[in-house]
Amino acid sequence: MTIKDARTPVSAQNSAPNSTRKSAQEDTTGTAGTGKSIGWHKAYVEGSRPDLRVPVRQVHLTNGQSVTLYDTSGPYTDPLVDTDVRRGLAPLRENWIIARGDTEEYAGRPVRPEDDGIKHTSPRGGLRNLDAVFPGRPRQPRRGRDGNAVTQLAYARRGEITPEMEYVAVRENVSPEVVREEIAAGRAVLPANVNHPEIEPMIIGKRFLVKVNANIGNSAVTSSIEEEVDKMTWATRWGADTVMDLSTGRNIHTTREWVLRNSPVPIGTVPLYQALEKVDGRAEELTWEIYKDTVIEQAEQGVDYMTVHAGVRLPYVPLTANRKTGIVSRGGSIMAAWCLAHHKESFLYENFEELCEILAAYDVTYSLGDGLRPGSIADANDEAQFAELRTLGELNRIAKRCNVQTMIEGPGHVPMHKIKENIDLQQEICDEAPFYTLGPLTTDVAPAYDHITSGIGAAMIAWWGTAMLCYVTPKEHLGLPNRDDVKTGVITYKIAAHAADLAKGHPGAQEWDDALSDARFEFRWEDQFNLALDPDTARAFHDETLPAEPAKTAHFCSMCGPKFCSMKISQSITEQFGGTAAAGATAEEVAEGMLQKSREFAERGNRVYLPMVD
Amino acid sequence: MTIKDARTPVSAQNSAPNSTRKSAQEDTTGTAGTGKSIGWHKAYVEGSRPDLRVPVRQVHLTNGQSVTLYDTSGPYTDPLVDTDVRRGLAPLRENWIIARGDTEEYAGRPVRPEDDGIKHTSPRGGLRNLDAVFPGRPRQPRRGRDGNAVTQLAYARRGEITPEMEYVAVRENVSPEVVREEIAAGRAVLPANVNHPEIEPMIIGKRFLVKVNANIGNSAVTSSIEEEVDKMTWATRWGADTVMDLSTGRNIHTTREWVLRNSPVPIGTVPLYQALEKVDGRAEELTWEIYKDTVIEQAEQGVDYMTVHAGVRLPYVPLTANRKTGIVSRGGSIMAAWCLAHHKESFLYENFEELCEILAAYDVTYSLGDGLRPGSIADANDEAQFAELRTLGELNRIAKRCNVQTMIEGPGHVPMHKIKENIDLQQEICDEAPFYTLGPLTTDVAPAYDHITSGIGAAMIAWWGTAMLCYVTPKEHLGLPNRDDVKTGVITYKIAAHAADLAKGHPGAQEWDDALSDARFEFRWEDQFNLALDPDTARAFHDETLPAEPAKTAHFCSMCGPKFCSMKISQSITEQFGGTAAAGATAEEVAEGMLQKSREFAERGNRVYLPMVD
Repeated sequence: MTIKDARTPVSAQNSAPNSTRKSAQEDTTGTAGTGKSIGWHKAYVEGSRPDLRVPVRQVHLTNGQSVTLYDTSGPYTDPLVDTDVRRGLAPLRENWIIARGDTEEYAGRPVRPEDDGIKHTSPRGGLRNLDAVFPGRPRQPRRGRDGNAVTQLAYARRGEITPEMEYVAVRENVSPEVVREEIAAGRAVLPANVNHPEIEPMIIGKRFLVKVNANIGNSAVTSSIEEEVDKMTWATRWGADTVMDLSTGRNIHTTREWVLRNSPVPIGTVPLYQALEKVDGRAEELTWEIYKDTVIEQAEQGVDYMTVHAGVRLPYVPLTANRKTGIVSRGGSIMAAWCLAHHKESFLYENFEELCEILAAYDVTYSLGDGLRPGSIADANDEAQFAELRTLGELNRIAKRCNVQTMIEGPGHVPMHKIKENIDLQQEICDEAPFYTLGPLTTDVAPAYDHITSGIGAAMIAWWGTAMLCYVTPKEHLGLPNRDDVKTGVITYKIAAHAADLAKGHPGAQEWDDALSDARFEFRWEDQFNLALDPDTARAFHDETLPAEPAKTAHFCSMCGPKFCSMKISQSITEQFGGTAAAGATAEEVAEGMLQKSREFAERGNRVYLPMVD
Repeated sequence: MTIKDARTPVSAQNSAPNSTRKSAQEDTTGTAGTGKSIGWHKAYVEGSRPDLRVPVRQVHLTNGQSVTLYDTSGPYTDPLVDTDVRRGLAPLRENWIIARGDTEEYAGRPVRPEDDGIKHTSPRGGLRNLDAVFPGRPRQPRRGRDGNAVTQLAYARRGEITPEMEYVAVRENVSPEVVREEIAAGRAVLPANVNHPEIEPMIIGKRFLVKVNANIGNSAVTSSIEEEVDKMTWATRWGADTVMDLSTGRNIHTTREWVLRNSPVPIGTVPLYQALEKVDGRAEELTWEIYKDTVIEQAEQGVDYMTVHAGVRLPYVPLTANRKTGIVSRGGSIMAAWCLAHHKESFLYENFEELCEILAAYDVTYSLGDGLRPGSIADANDEAQFAELRTLGELNRIAKRCNVQTMIEGPGHVPMHKIKENIDLQQEICDEAPFYTLGPLTTDVAPAYDHITSGIGAAMIAWWGTAMLCYVTPKEHLGLPNRDDVKTGVITYKIAAHAADLAKGHPGAQEWDDALSDARFEFRWEDQFNLALDPDTARAFHDETLPAEPAKTAHFCSMCGPKFCSMKISQSITEQFGGTAAAGATAEEVAEGMLQKSREFAERGNRVYLPMVD
């Protein structure tokens, strides 16, 4: 996370009280995703032009200072913006895209019934609330004129600094030129489909803050389109930098449309999932034409990056035969099944260059999938995994030749001592293209806690250079994540990402920790809560043990209680040796003062002891 | 964790059905701590003598095989043992201690009212259920005859392999000679006070499995003695290898007695806490005599290891003056306050050699406390911290000269890139004495999630050689851990410890992961649950999404559903390339078979899609 003095525009200042009032109400109702918390408000940092306003989360401290944090929550946390899920978000980037003059609107591909999996006969058939075509859709999609590559990579290579590049430069506290250089070199990607003008641009690369992706996806059994849109806003509310819509089954096209029109962050997909739906789940019936048609369908909707498992080649499939857990990537096993059924090379590998031309015309970013990633500690770093990685390196060069932005996906399940080899090899083989890993999980023995087994590996691999982390929820391997699981997954991965930013010495990263530690040392409880990754839970845990009043202003915590507080002693030491007072005297004064505080607190009947730490 | 074929005695086999029946009932009532889970039972591995029986947790798999896991839960999970908190556990080691003939019983120190903090006047005064002297206490304590050092270190140096050493050798799957060598070299400790014969011996050292400590401690506000005993059994039920009783306030002596008499694991304390109570919280009134008297009081009760902050020396206190969070160790700040108030060198440092003689006579193990550990990312690895560490190295040599077993405590709050320096320096300065760290927390910004911020650092530092990890609960920095917090803290740290065992290549460690991964690949759901660190939660999460029947035997999971399962494809690949069948044919057969399964499942109305991962 980045912290700096925000040049807060009037509008944001005006919004502060309003935001405070709203949040008090919403905290109680718990309808987050659009929640405005007490103690902070949405502000904007303006760039070189009035239509370039970068959102930040400004935390107001009780000592009069303020701390500005990176904000992914979108307009939903701005009380001055009326959001309507049926209208969608404002097309922030539309004028920037049109001004470049290198794109054109066109009729586009007609939406067909099978795009929503109508062929399926589900006992739960029938549309629900919001399960309808997005208002005003289909509209004319946009693409590069004459098949031009309209990608941020192409612009960066031409030396152009786009508004999107300046936007992320402000967000990351670096110069726009650094952003352009990293994109031009292929070391960073700025996923931004010309048909998704609603996004607030962000960048993925090792020179920048580590990013976190959250997966959502509808289920024929348990969730509606409205729930998917809510899951997306909920995930970004807690810090998700991108969201992957992995929906399958019914209403897949319509669900994606609603998510895209309402998403302030880039949306990723795995087109193979929808293509498989179109052949009713029969992998062997997949064709390049069906896949290509699906990619165009999704590119026209505005999908910002797509996972493509083009590295799963026929000759690699046998390499998985003696694995403990074979192929655990769904996309990887679909392609393996296709290769086996036809005894042919993967149609994704064979047609990769044509696919590049399609993606370049919309600025869809590749996420080259690791279909052969290990699914257990035993299979980590094996021949199958690294054979695919070498092919991903080859495909990365083809994509770059076609001006397509590209990142590389990584494992998976890897014990700690084998993690570094993964990032080192990927960086070498893939010319430092951004690495995007799922965890990795550092042990297999803790189902129900895989957000933690993987959070450990995620923090380490991010420290060593991974640019984006795909979250894992407590339900991994077991079931369907609910709202709480999504939040737990995102928070766990924001911890891993920030721990890595600290270890990498990212400029400004430690200022956040320092601000919270100062608040802790000075017993500014409200500031500790408001600076926390999850203010609501931190406040709730504190209030469980200590009464809200007078503990919120008490100069001690429930760990040692009023009777003896290490922080107070430390403060006296600081006074003495920072100042000039006689040591003994000051220490006794402090001891006296503490005893006094203790008596006062005891009179209130709030004497607390909790020596659960030393 | 260690896995091996258990030589299960008849008694344990008989207990299997009994244990199964009991657990079914207790799972529903949720009264764990003494819970017996379905699918596993308590067994024992016999050593060279009938009274040397090492408990193991034997998991019975549906494929007829069984897996044996390290077990810390004590007699509470043995249906053949009737436990009674008022009687305490059987004195397993008593005959071993007596047989050595080097100890004597003696009158012992009379228990005084102030031992239970009677001087305190608490609005909540008055004894509750169980708040009474333990039945039959005080009894005659035992100590080394003529002040002999009766420590495992002394025996190991003399070349003796004690029953305790053989016990841990069986537990760790190593030869007794390896155990003796590691203890003799001071690279490992076997905490076992001659007055705590109830413990099941365990060892702490980098050559062995990484251990986890859980802290408990009564609170005048919220917990009774009975609750502390329950917290101890609850923590060991989930895998705590040792427990520290950090009680303060009222009934501190009595609480400790109840915990010790009922604990199957070594108990640690911080005697300074009770000594401070005896001077009503006035640090400056502490004296060597009061402290020494408290150490003897606790040694006679049977405390196995004690945290001693003898490294906090007067000249180091000013080094903390310019820190962001000063001194955060309670013990450290107590000693700093004393040094400042009197302007004298620490009485613990000055009298360290005499303290060694006391501990040697009971075989109390030192845990040399890091009173100046950093309390924030900003203060990590600073001058104050490492100055104290150098003094701990000096004290470690004195302790070894007196035949006292010794481990060294470590931080704290440390960013990832500064963690390795901590373990490397400690190992060098302290002659490879076992390192015992609290986390470290890798960021300060996530109060309410510090079990995770610290679990990351704990896994890394354990991989690099830390022997025991002190857990951190979600309530750290905020409040009083409840039963759920204790469980979450222990499970998180068992994950960190096992991830480190894997990374260290500990013999047998990966067999556990392999057994669970095999079960996962073969859709043996019950086996996955029973092999999990937390079977109850894993089973509950699975059942949330998929109906109990027929999903428990379904050959797919809720991730991809029946329509397309990557595991099934992988199995067909294994069949083909492991076997000789024609590829195409087999793949189609499998596709057919899956389609068939899919139809059957759909007929049951259980068609499930959950593409939350790829």
